[in-house]
Amino acid sequence: MNQIANFMSDNAAAACPAVMAAVAAAAPAQPAGYDGDDWSGRLEAMFGDMFARPCAVLPVSTGTAANALALACLVPPWGAVACHSEAHIHVDECGAPEFFTGGAKLLLCPGDNGKLTPTSIDAGLASHRGDVHQVQMAALSITQATECGTVYRPAEVAALAAHARAQGWRLHMDGARFANAAAFLACPPADLVADMDVLSFGCIKNGGMSAEAIVLFDLGLADQLRWRRKRAGQMPSKGRFNAAQILAMVTDGVWLRNAAAANAGAQRLASAASDRLLYPVEANEVFVQLAPGEPERLRAQGFLFYDWGAAGSNEARLVVSWDTPPDAVERLAAALAAG
Amino acid sequence: MNQIANFMSDNAAAACPAVMAAVAAAAPAQPAGYDGDDWSGRLEAMFGDMFARPCAVLPVSTGTAANALALACLVPPWGAVACHSEAHIHVDECGAPEFFTGGAKLLLCPGDNGKLTPTSIDAGLASHRGDVHQVQMAALSITQATECGTVYRPAEVAALAAHARAQGWRLHMDGARFANAAAFLACPPADLVADMDVLSFGCIKNGGMSAEAIVLFDLGLADQLRWRRKRAGQMPSKGRFNAAQILAMVTDGVWLRNAAAANAGAQRLASAASDRLLYPVEANEVFVQLAPGEPERLRAQGFLFYDWGAAGSNEARLVVSWDTPPDAVERLAAALAAG
Amino acid sequence: MNQIANFMSDNAAAACPAVMAAVAAAAPAQPAGYDGDDWSGRLEAMFGDMFARPCAVLPVSTGTAANALALACLVPPWGAVACHSEAHIHVDECGAPEFFTGGAKLLLCPGDNGKLTPTSIDAGLASHRGDVHQVQMAALSITQATECGTVYRPAEVAALAAHARAQGWRLHMDGARFANAAAFLACPPADLVADMDVLSFGCIKNGGMSAEAIVLFDLGLADQLRWRRKRAGQMPSKGRFNAAQILAMVTDGVWLRNAAAANAGAQRLASAASDRLLYPVEANEVFVQLAPGEPERLRAQGFLFYDWGAAGSNEARLVVSWDTPPDAVERLAAALAAG
Amino acid sequence: MNQIANFMSDNAAAACPAVMAAVAAAAPAQPAGYDGDDWSGRLEAMFGDMFARPCAVLPVSTGTAANALALACLVPPWGAVACHSEAHIHVDECGAPEFFTGGAKLLLCPGDNGKLTPTSIDAGLASHRGDVHQVQMAALSITQATECGTVYRPAEVAALAAHARAQGWRLHMDGARFANAAAFLACPPADLVADMDVLSFGCIKNGGMSAEAIVLFDLGLADQLRWRRKRAGQMPSKGRFNAAQILAMVTDGVWLRNAAAANAGAQRLASAASDRLLYPVEANEVFVQLAPGEPERLRAQGFLFYDWGAAGSNEARLVVSWDTPPDAVERLAAALAAG
Repeated sequence: MNQIANFMSDNAAAACPAVMAAVAAAAPAQPAGYDGDDWSGRLEAMFGDMFARPCAVLPVSTGTAANALALACLVPPWGAVACHSEAHIHVDECGAPEFFTGGAKLLLCPGDNGKLTPTSIDAGLASHRGDVHQVQMAALSITQATECGTVYRPAEVAALAAHARAQGWRLHMDGARFANAAAFLACPPADLVADMDVLSFGCIKNGGMSAEAIVLFDLGLADQLRWRRKRAGQMPSKGRFNAAQILAMVTDGVWLRNAAAANAGAQRLASAASDRLLYPVEANEVFVQLAPGEPERLRAQGFLFYDWGAAGSNEARLVVSWDTPPDAVERLAAALAAG
Repeated sequence: MNQIANFMSDNAAAACPAVMAAVAAAAPAQPAGYDGDDWSGRLEAMFGDMFARPCAVLPVSTGTAANALALACLVPPWGAVACHSEAHIHVDECGAPEFFTGGAKLLLCPGDNGKLTPTSIDAGLASHRGDVHQVQMAALSITQATECGTVYRPAEVAALAAHARAQGWRLHMDGARFANAAAFLACPPADLVADMDVLSFGCIKNGGMSAEAIVLFDLGLADQLRWRRKRAGQMPSKGRFNAAQILAMVTDGVWLRNAAAANAGAQRLASAASDRLLYPVEANEVFVQLAPGEPERLRAQGFLFYDWGAAGSNEARLVVSWDTPPDAVERLAAALAAG
Repeated sequence: MNQIANFMSDNAAAACPAVMAAVAAAAPAQPAGYDGDDWSGRLEAMFGDMFARPCAVLPVSTGTAANALALACLVPPWGAVACHSEAHIHVDECGAPEFFTGGAKLLLCPGDNGKLTPTSIDAGLASHRGDVHQVQMAALSITQATECGTVYRPAEVAALAAHARAQGWRLHMDGARFANAAAFLACPPADLVADMDVLSFGCIKNGGMSAEAIVLFDLGLADQLRWRRKRAGQMPSKGRFNAAQILAMVTDGVWLRNAAAANAGAQRLASAASDRLLYPVEANEVFVQLAPGEPERLRAQGFLFYDWGAAGSNEARLVVSWDTPPDAVERLAAALAAG
Repeated sequence: MNQIANFMSDNAAAACPAVMAAVAAAAPAQPAGYDGDDWSGRLEAMFGDMFARPCAVLPVSTGTAANALALACLVPPWGAVACHSEAHIHVDECGAPEFFTGGAKLLLCPGDNGKLTPTSIDAGLASHRGDVHQVQMAALSITQATECGTVYRPAEVAALAAHARAQGWRLHMDGARFANAAAFLACPPADLVADMDVLSFGCIKNGGMSAEAIVLFDLGLADQLRWRRKRAGQMPSKGRFNAAQILAMVTDGVWLRNAAAANAGAQRLASAASDRLLYPVEANEVFVQLAPGEPERLRAQGFLFYDWGAAGSNEARLVVSWDTPPDAVERLAAALAAG
């Protein structure tokens, strides 16, 4: 029998030691509940330093909550959000953005390799008039790293932001795998969010346990977000446990180290299947065209992964996590190389 | 200088060792994310045994989320929920029930000691006609233990339930301090929820970390709740951490032991102020009439607590947590006895 | 057999000749649909003149829509509206304000004769803290004339407005019977709305057919209201029919003349029952304490009206419409005088 | 100077004599308000006869309200509606379906000539998985006549309905131009709605004034719809005016006669441009490919119409109304024939 090697999702990964230690340290009684603890009090300074500008930081329990609350602060109920047709907010959140915004619409745009461009946005919105009979374009949401495992370069983000700003739109970044993008680009984090109003800063896929952070660069939205968060059941009474996890991730570069490990594994797989990659491999996801029969053979060898694309297409998604054992990666690389 | 003794809120209490150990044990990578782990898989059997009937159990991150999601499953947007005028869902959830239900109304009813009765409900709804111009009564929500630190007896709950059922209403119990009620009554847990459709089973105030459980006794609502939970950003990708906490609480009676410790502290305080209690002390909260100047004197001695009632009324709320040091309780009892 | 005389509601009254003529005149084809017609184009100037300040005027199909859309422009989903406990928005709109606002709450305040005062508002909100765990007070809604058939004097409105402004609240007036208030006070209409952000200007009860007007004095809300109105299905494709009705009402004083006729009938009834009025009679509604058996006797004489207050209280509401035949009023007055 | 001939929209058409007479007849005072009048009372029998099965009929003030309320009765907040990518509910209702449903999603499907087919629906939903992370498919909405001026044959509707039913979806028909479809098909109206749960029965474009009808064939939804309608501000206090209009339309075949007149005009235009029609002309809309410069020439001759398609495409939409003067149609036909 073959040993199981799980490349299905970074959602099943371990929580990393730094996060677990931080949670343990937050166990004792504290002077105050909700966000009144020391950990919560340190978030804004920590992120302000990291992103080199003032921000408000509010932990929530899931990436879906982060995205939906962020969008609710940016668009009115009669507003619209332009996003990629494969964006998580459209295909994987059971309508959370519509729920939290009070019924705003997502307007879907195409884009190669999971990336939007000013041109692809214009194409997606070509038939949108914007008169009173239609929802009003109000925000652009981009995913970094993308759902295709690619990474926007800072110049690409800047071009999108300029396009959005010229039309008065607000800017949201879904950063469920922001750390993987940051590790790939190896530029100052500030350069990654230079034009954003709000970032959903993901931790859980990258070794966190149960907390993501909404990072607001438009401080004028902070009060609104606090009320929306409470009202959404996302303001925990022992908020320190969330804050402590997030602090642990961004202290001493844990988040970048974890992400770099995952990215490296993905690169190893990519090198073994370089002639049949569906998209450039830039983060921790590898999308690969398998041969007929190959999915079954790989699974028989103990490799777990999701089929991708249309039924029978033999496309596969391979996700490497921060803690995927290197030998599991090597074994899969060898299997892929063997075709 | 006096040592601080904190009676402000059980929201600032420690997370208990059993919960912290369970969280640590859930750290390693698992075969599947979301609710696909072993801990999540054991919840329903565990609660089914405890309550002696089938139930669906879905963890969420806060009591507000538990209550609001529960009510959303029970009442339509044009529905109404009868509740006590001091109910947490009305005064402490920033409109979460209205948000999650799509705009249902809470109709407020009076009731001594924080308790509703069939008569007090009738009084609260006396002017409600229920024709098409009004929201439609659809559910009753009661809090166990109540916001006044009192506990409904099973017969009281049964009378309320019969009153509700006779009018076709659904039944919700806000059990943020359900454990304290269960410890006080010392009856089988099943007797406490005999007539309920949904229970918000609280853990966090009672030594939990970051998870509460929605317990559905009407299994026909389970699919709906799963979709609503996802859509609310309350379905975590590493759901095992929530499930593990909840399992730890209900294993080997941890929840009852923690609650009993808190209740005992409250009884100690009550005995020291028995002639000036605002409500019977039955759970872990003590509401006491202080004398003019006494709040200041107590605070000068290091005791922290919230003022209660109207400004200048000298009423105080004293909350004992599962981990409040016995000597802190003794010192406060002595201070109260000294008047 | 006695002739029927209907004092149940001004909702069953005739549409007045001026309104019917205006509707007929709007029948022919026009150059443009929606609000692109001449009638719609004249609304703002007409109301601007009447109220002596710039305003935006958007017709809707019901008073409930007017109120709910107005409030949605004034308060966020996490906001609260202070209103009288008997306000139409609370007891007669099936939760429309909660629906349109995205779940804001109405906080109920007491007040004699259906009127709020700064003191009664403070009393109603005494337990409202306003911290992040609660909805945020955002607007005051008053009803002119009130649900008790009384009329706020301009100084009373000014005092309420000052109280509201001091706390940063917006101001809404439900004017379903605004015309009756205006006719009673006989002051310039501008004096009635001096402090308001939005007025729901009622026409239908006062001889209109199927249109009410939302009058926005805060022009900064106009775009938002246009989008909200469209999205609510309240922007008719042949908008001219609504606009024409409203214009007809405010042209040549039709609205005041109709209301004066209704008010005069109410005064006649009041004079016949002056020793048993429940509230001062100032508009077109008379609330009267009948004697045991009297409701039945009056109905046997052909008078139709609603019982009021608690079952068995023998309280009655008598509504006089703009078109109630004077002899019907005289007959009822005589019957009341006879006890 | 050329005489203006307006082919922009049937929204600017006249209200027809039968409707205006009915409205005038409803002017006098009635025994009861809201839906308590005789006209409202006759709607269900009239439509029940017409469609040969029991139905509930509730007037509303716009087609947007009809569609959005209908969908809200068919899909939950976490539900999805499959519709054509050019459907009015998606592109022309400012998010009303999302607002009224509490945030459900529209999933867009392709289809030639504005028509969906089982195959095109499958294509549109190919990437929709339907697991708990996604909204749940709950209804199909089709437009009859379509946004392209084409008409579904009964067999086409039956095929769509069978496809939908096999998957447990509910069925909605947006019949803003239902009369034009009925006049084109010249079959019993019952055959047009055989499989529907709800029909938005349009009147306004076809000679009505200010009322559309929601026709519910699933009577189990009637209570819900009454509450939703009230709550949406769509239950007018003088409901007789809406009911009278709708009755007038369906009495003595007015609706079919009006529609036939409009359709005939469209056929005349189509015959003059038969070689450059964008879609088959089956209702009262003609979509035509103009030559470069032709739009300007036609406008210079006094013809008003909307450009269609992409900017610079020289596509035009020509709408004929029930009351478009035949000579205006002849003049435009001649102009088109002259190319």
